Amino acid sequence: MDSPYYAVIFSSVSSQNQSGYAETAKRMDELAAEQPGYLGIESVHAAGESITVSFWESEDAIAAWKADAEHTIARETGRRRWYDSYVLRVAKVEREYDWARSGDQG
Amino acid sequence: MDSPYYAVIFSSVSSQNQSGYAETAKRMDELAAEQPGYLGIESVHAAGESITVSFWESEDAIAAWKADAEHTIARETGRRRWYDSYVLRVAKVEREYDWARSGDQG
Repeated sequence: MDSPYYAVIFSSVSSQNQSGYAETAKRMDELAAEQPGYLGIESVHAAGESITVSFWESEDAIAAWKADAEHTIARETGRRRWYDSYVLRVAKVEREYDWARSGDQG
Repeated sequence: MDSPYYAVIFSSVSSQNQSGYAETAKRMDELAAEQPGYLGIESVHAAGESITVSFWESEDAIAAWKADAEHTIARETGRRRWYDSYVLRVAKVEREYDWARSGDQG
């Protein structure tokens, strides 16, 4: 991605009640991907902890996604049910380095 | 943390050779925590994928940690051995929201 762009870094600790989480998370991934200014998402889940980073062209795109009605309901359900705590950070990505093993280094 | 501060978002895909990784990762966590301007780290590892986000007071602090000799050796070993690919992003955290379940919401 060409910087600058924006990252929303969402670090969460799960509660014991994960009822309905997987379906909603899948739906939110799909819905986010349809938003104007969406660039991508990366997510890693382990026992009880997750980090999800979504990427956006602008702060306006982030604000519009935050205001989406279905997303707002999912967020409220998350606070009521799925999370014990979370930290959400909005950050401007200033530079990026991509590295991949080349074939001959196998 | 009081924004603005900086985040280094490191998203990696593991190779099949993880020999020595755990020890080096632990050592790097300890060494990073001793650096001037270090604010914290969050990391989630799952099968073959990781996201690690470290937080820093300034771009100078990030540059100094990048230049650390032991860190440089670890990074080179990572490219030679532990990773198939990674993306490293340097981002300025502009705002942060913390949420935690309050006791009476059980």
